[in-house]
Amino acid sequence: MISRSDVLAASETIRGHIRRTPVVDLDGVTLKLELLQHTGSFKPRGTFNKVLRDGCGPEGLIAASGGNHGLAVAYAARRLGVPAEVFVPTISSPTKVARLRSLEATVHVGGSEYAEALLKAQARQTETGALGVHAYDDPLVIAGQGTVGAELHEQAGDLDVVLVAVGGGGLASGIAAYYGSDVQVVAVETEHTNAYAAAVAAGRPVVVDRVGGPAADSLGASSIGVLAFDILQTNLVPSLLVSDRWVLVAQQLLWTEFRLVAEPGGATALAALLSGVYVPEESCKVGVVVCGSNTDPQTVIA
Amino acid sequence: MISRSDVLAASETIRGHIRRTPVVDLDGVTLKLELLQHTGSFKPRGTFNKVLRDGCGPEGLIAASGGNHGLAVAYAARRLGVPAEVFVPTISSPTKVARLRSLEATVHVGGSEYAEALLKAQARQTETGALGVHAYDDPLVIAGQGTVGAELHEQAGDLDVVLVAVGGGGLASGIAAYYGSDVQVVAVETEHTNAYAAAVAAGRPVVVDRVGGPAADSLGASSIGVLAFDILQTNLVPSLLVSDRWVLVAQQLLWTEFRLVAEPGGATALAALLSGVYVPEESCKVGVVVCGSNTDPQTVIA
Repeated sequence: MISRSDVLAASETIRGHIRRTPVVDLDGVTLKLELLQHTGSFKPRGTFNKVLRDGCGPEGLIAASGGNHGLAVAYAARRLGVPAEVFVPTISSPTKVARLRSLEATVHVGGSEYAEALLKAQARQTETGALGVHAYDDPLVIAGQGTVGAELHEQAGDLDVVLVAVGGGGLASGIAAYYGSDVQVVAVETEHTNAYAAAVAAGRPVVVDRVGGPAADSLGASSIGVLAFDILQTNLVPSLLVSDRWVLVAQQLLWTEFRLVAEPGGATALAALLSGVYVPEESCKVGVVVCGSNTDPQTVIA
Repeated sequence: MISRSDVLAASETIRGHIRRTPVVDLDGVTLKLELLQHTGSFKPRGTFNKVLRDGCGPEGLIAASGGNHGLAVAYAARRLGVPAEVFVPTISSPTKVARLRSLEATVHVGGSEYAEALLKAQARQTETGALGVHAYDDPLVIAGQGTVGAELHEQAGDLDVVLVAVGGGGLASGIAAYYGSDVQVVAVETEHTNAYAAAVAAGRPVVVDRVGGPAADSLGASSIGVLAFDILQTNLVPSLLVSDRWVLVAQQLLWTEFRLVAEPGGATALAALLSGVYVPEESCKVGVVVCGSNTDPQTVIA
């Protein structure tokens, strides 16, 4: 199982390739502005850790992604001078697909769900010999995403609680692996992207039906990652569900208060605080990861 | 003349009222993201210092402003529970006027230039007895704006050069007062908002004609402030002019690289680096203040 030492090793590995994103205060809550990362989400952390540790040849990289992971893989490939192929489901936002193409990745759009795109990517990987980078269910990817937690710890000191959105669980499990029992990590999902909540209820990762809502294109994994589930459960990470309406309220607040454009999945952790789904105890120091910005800004501006 | 001790006193005075804005790295250059300040610009720093030091009664606050200063005054008034009246010239962006109204300020639109709005504000102030807050030509306002420099120093350590946009000169002179001879502060203006460059050429503040271009609504002062000019000259701050085209390039880069929405005036200092108008020496540590975000985001998105 991944632990703090794996995350700290990842921090060393990816140094110089990723951006140290800033924190800001919102009424005593520390917001980690990971949406200012290269490509607009935390995903390059896991990708660079995977690629730099496993190495990759001239065949380049291959991935399946609803968008943000694909952007990270395309970005890393371009920085490392190798080609990238990205398989995206039709659910992906046009904004993300356009950005993928602008990073010179070969984009294959097809399949209604992430799981289908993943199967196609795996078949193609067998043909080409490229390095496959899983969006979340890989120990090196998880350790890379966990570096968000390591940075937050350096920047904000000792927090009591960290709220983080969950799709496939790579970011939340990486952060939970970093903090271990020192900090209560809380996973936040939406009512229509609830792969971790469903797994908690079932006692194991299960496929969820009817993924949808505004956060679906980043949090809409059809099941939580096997590794992520194990780490989240070991670290006693609870799942909280927020409504789509509160996700949009959080997105709007980030715009009006900070002029930050967050995507719905990126604003989901904050929605748990705003909606009162999560109410911190008095004097509890809370951190919230704002993890993605890849949306059409016109959807955010009131 | 204002010095570092005045700026440090201002830091104490306004603590708890303003946001400590973060810094990020762009290829070795430190960007101070002051556009994430309350109301989307640095202006609340000067306003809070003025109001908290001079005090204000139930008559409230009054100001003339092309927008950002007015927003700061309206915001401070609301936080302190007093009314605000703001006089804005017709050149002001509709986005800013709408935001002023949303902060519950009484807005008077009229006059084609800032100078006309200022005269009207001064006349009204005589009637009502409200506290007038000048947008830049006031020692308490300048000391408050200088706290951007004090924070940047804490966050980025010893820089060699700090680039900052100039309109009326409050921000640049405050930062120059803070750094004194320790750091080279460089004032950046646009070819059509050049009040400081004109003053440097004339040896004294002069009224500039034909203010215009995309940055005019934030940098378009018709003359540099008398106090600001004195501080800038004493601290040997040069003026550099960038073209409107490079201002828009800088705005675009902040969006594509960071997903940050900066207004043209907020991106002007960065434009000096991108355009090559300012070329730092090898191993020179450069800071750039990104100072405002109040624009229609649709103008930024490619």
